[in-house]
Amino acid sequence: MSDTFHAMWRSLRPLGRSDATGGYRRFAWTGADADCRLWFRMQAEARRLDYEVDRNGNQWAWLGDPTAGDAVVTGSHLDSVPDGGAFDGPLGVVSAFAALDELRSRQVRFRRPFAIVNFGDEEGARFGLACVGSRLAAGQLTKEAAHELRDADGVTLPRAMEAAGYDPDAIGPDPERLARIGAFVELHVEQGRALDLSGDPVGIASAIWPHGRWRYDFRGEANHAGTTRLADRRDPMLSYAQTVLAARREAELAGAVATFGKVSVEPNGVNAIPSVVRGWLDSRAADQTTLDRVVAGVEAAAREAADRQGVDLAVVRESFTPVVEFAHALRDELGKLLGGRVPVLGTGAGHDAGILSAAVPTAMLFVRNPTGVSHSPAEHATEDDCVAGVLALADVLEGLACA
Amino acid sequence: MSDTFHAMWRSLRPLGRSDATGGYRRFAWTGADADCRLWFRMQAEARRLDYEVDRNGNQWAWLGDPTAGDAVVTGSHLDSVPDGGAFDGPLGVVSAFAALDELRSRQVRFRRPFAIVNFGDEEGARFGLACVGSRLAAGQLTKEAAHELRDADGVTLPRAMEAAGYDPDAIGPDPERLARIGAFVELHVEQGRALDLSGDPVGIASAIWPHGRWRYDFRGEANHAGTTRLADRRDPMLSYAQTVLAARREAELAGAVATFGKVSVEPNGVNAIPSVVRGWLDSRAADQTTLDRVVAGVEAAAREAADRQGVDLAVVRESFTPVVEFAHALRDELGKLLGGRVPVLGTGAGHDAGILSAAVPTAMLFVRNPTGVSHSPAEHATEDDCVAGVLALADVLEGLACA
Repeated sequence: MSDTFHAMWRSLRPLGRSDATGGYRRFAWTGADADCRLWFRMQAEARRLDYEVDRNGNQWAWLGDPTAGDAVVTGSHLDSVPDGGAFDGPLGVVSAFAALDELRSRQVRFRRPFAIVNFGDEEGARFGLACVGSRLAAGQLTKEAAHELRDADGVTLPRAMEAAGYDPDAIGPDPERLARIGAFVELHVEQGRALDLSGDPVGIASAIWPHGRWRYDFRGEANHAGTTRLADRRDPMLSYAQTVLAARREAELAGAVATFGKVSVEPNGVNAIPSVVRGWLDSRAADQTTLDRVVAGVEAAAREAADRQGVDLAVVRESFTPVVEFAHALRDELGKLLGGRVPVLGTGAGHDAGILSAAVPTAMLFVRNPTGVSHSPAEHATEDDCVAGVLALADVLEGLACA
Repeated sequence: MSDTFHAMWRSLRPLGRSDATGGYRRFAWTGADADCRLWFRMQAEARRLDYEVDRNGNQWAWLGDPTAGDAVVTGSHLDSVPDGGAFDGPLGVVSAFAALDELRSRQVRFRRPFAIVNFGDEEGARFGLACVGSRLAAGQLTKEAAHELRDADGVTLPRAMEAAGYDPDAIGPDPERLARIGAFVELHVEQGRALDLSGDPVGIASAIWPHGRWRYDFRGEANHAGTTRLADRRDPMLSYAQTVLAARREAELAGAVATFGKVSVEPNGVNAIPSVVRGWLDSRAADQTTLDRVVAGVEAAAREAADRQGVDLAVVRESFTPVVEFAHALRDELGKLLGGRVPVLGTGAGHDAGILSAAVPTAMLFVRNPTGVSHSPAEHATEDDCVAGVLALADVLEGLACA
């Protein structure tokens, strides 16, 4: 691979990286995010691409006339989960630029407009909602709802955008821009072990599992941990603990996944029975019926536990994405362009590609993850596999966009 | 009761109170703490008492010669747990000043030196260790260990003391000051329902249960909540949940109490399996053998759960206080001074009186709490019972200190 491929990784590596954990903290509209966005702009300019930022803060780098229509677009995101890995998101952006470099070295001629995109706030790490940039563009999130989003410190999304130099009043649906796109291909590190188990460096996505987030608010009664008899307690931590275990059990029974990865406790004192324990359920399954069964099973178990302990429970669905079947024609074309030897696999992870697929023919490529670990500093892909990903993406883009 | 009694409550009420919760956030060496300390000083000066701050930041208000020895001292603390109630601590300080006012209105003559004290950082809400002011004075916490204490933002205790205008290098054992005290009586709101059940406004403490805090660090592997197969997970939230339930079970079996009221999760993202879940166990029992059994039972269950899930577990005892039997002679004298009709009861709560009892004859009075709720904005005592507490304290102080 070219020197610029390694140079891109070198320059991106330190941005937003925590010395303490080795993980990335590239949250939307923070300084680390601004660093990543500047990096993107510099990569675009170094390749003499036409750089633009859309009304929702997504970054674009164009080759050819953006308004001509039927463009081939590739890219991903640069933000991260808390203490995320180096590949989730950036691999798709770096590979996009590297694939363009590869195509230029092949001296091919583009017959369709081409763009590389960096979608803003894909992970939702700061404001709790994933894929904000693509959701806004696709009209799946209204300006009004976006303006209500708050981070853990109470800072609203519009305040955060403003502080980063963007205009929060401009956000909203962007059908004209999406109408420019004839095909969107997102390359992403795999976040499971399917390619590792099948022995393939690269795969094609079939579908994204339906998935959602539910907030469980358990309200009991704060009290002294040393002097309150067990019989007099209304301890929401007990209801929460039973719900965590119920989620695992329901997911196991259904062959799905269910996780409580985030919790917030009030007052969170060692010697105080909590008044409130707030837990977030993330659940996903291969089909809607299975997911409904898991989610209903967890809620029923939580209500039973809460009732027994005199604890009040409110369950709020914070986000939900139905199953996404990627465009079959584009998927089959990718398969042909890659010689027909590439496995096709479903995934439990949400992506901007999933959001866009409602409006635009969309496909995804996955690069092998030898451990399956993601959303962690230990997330990894070998250099050979990353190069295989770039070459596969270049083959796909050449087939779709070039003469 | 006198107007000054109501005026004291009125002036203390707004200090460090959260508008959002109605609870108090009077944490050591913060602005709210400084407000409370200024309040104490003004009360002392309004009564022409000699005000002093000792090397550990505890505040004293003296009537008579502090160095004469055999002093009668009363008081409590003004700091709070997160979102604590109005009475835990302040009731003992307000009642001390009110009891002095009562004795002056009785025109009694003091034959022993008398002081009112406000011990610093009793709740340990900020630095995680309770009774720091009295522990330092009694030599139960070294200067070196105190200098290692850090709050959640990483601020050390010495930095916090310095920022509040105190000298952290001066802290340490204070045997001369403790040797001045012939009897220490702390009045406190009850934090259980024993007096409510017996129908008495005031009680006398027999003993403080042995109690401690243990930190459980569960370390698993951060991973993507949507794409990681259940079989590939090392999810520390599951081990934590099982441990929370085990603590309740073990406490029930033993007739003790055990609570997980505080938890901290990394990375604490909705779509990330946690890498670390840190939970704090608070446990207390009437005797050491029972407490040992509960603590060992919880740890065994936690290790079994962690092993099954491929999670590492480290358990650290962060603090421990053995059983405290209050001085029997002083306790009996209080009983006689109160006419022999006052119940004597044990408690699961730690207090500065418990720390001091190793060095000084110490007793406690409890005021009825109609719901037993404490460490919560809902903590309450009726005005009639607060007045009964002041009069009982005045009777005790008159009998001990006056001619």
